[in-house]
Amino acid sequence: MNPKRCAACKYLRRRCPKDCVFSPYFPPNDPQKFACVHRIYGAGNVSKMLQQLPDQTRAEAVESLCFEAKCRVDDPVYGCVGIIHLLKTQIQKTQNELAKTQAEIAVSQTKLSQTQNSDFM
Amino acid sequence: MNPKRCAACKYLRRRCPKDCVFSPYFPPNDPQKFACVHRIYGAGNVSKMLQQLPDQTRAEAVESLCFEAKCRVDDPVYGCVGIIHLLKTQIQKTQNELAKTQAEIAVSQTKLSQTQNSDFM
Repeated sequence: MNPKRCAACKYLRRRCPKDCVFSPYFPPNDPQKFACVHRIYGAGNVSKMLQQLPDQTRAEAVESLCFEAKCRVDDPVYGCVGIIHLLKTQIQKTQNELAKTQAEIAVSQTKLSQTQNSDFM
Repeated sequence: MNPKRCAACKYLRRRCPKDCVFSPYFPPNDPQKFACVHRIYGAGNVSKMLQQLPDQTRAEAVESLCFEAKCRVDDPVYGCVGIIHLLKTQIQKTQNELAKTQAEIAVSQTKLSQTQNSDFM
C-alpha cells in the first residue's frame, strides 16, 4: 500500500495514478470528505463532473459538491435546499423589519415637521 | 413498449415495475426531470436515497434533488451553493440597509425630542 494515495483512491481501494483527478482535492488526511461525495454522487459521477471542468475551477467545484453532499447526508429530504428555504425566510423577516422601521422613520419625520411647523405659528 | 412507463424507466429503457421507486415522482410527460437527476446523481444513487426515506417524505426529497441537479447542470462549478452565496449577500445588504435606517430613526427621534424640549424653554 502506498501511504501517499489520495483519500479517494484509498476509499476505492485502488492505486492512485499520477494524473488522478481526485488527488489534488482529496488529501489522505481527510477521508470523510471523499466518503461524503461518494455516498451522494458516486465516484464515477464526481470524476465525470470534474473532468468536464477546466483545472482552475475544480477546487471550487469540489468544495461546493462536498458542501451539498454533507447537507444531503445531514438532511436526506431537503439537502441544502433546506438552507435556501431558511435563508429566504430570513430575508423575508429582515425585509419586513426594514419596512416596519422605514414606516417608523416616516412617522417620526412627520411628527418632527409638524413640531417644527407649529414653532412658526 | 408500454406507454405508461414512468419517465425514469423510459430513460433507462427498462420495464416499469408495479412497485417502481421512481414512478410516483417521475411522470412520463416530464422526461427532463429524470434526465437531470440521472446526469448528476445517477439512477442507482437516486433510487438508493429514495428507498432509505419513508414514503411520505419522498416527493419532497425528489423535488429538492431535482432542484439541486438543475442548479448543478446550470452552474457546474457552484451548483446551488451559488444561490446560497447570493442569498447571503442579499441578507447582508438588507441588514446593512436596516442598520442604516435604524440609525436614521435614532437621529430623527433625537431631533424630535430636542425640538420638543426647546418648546418648554
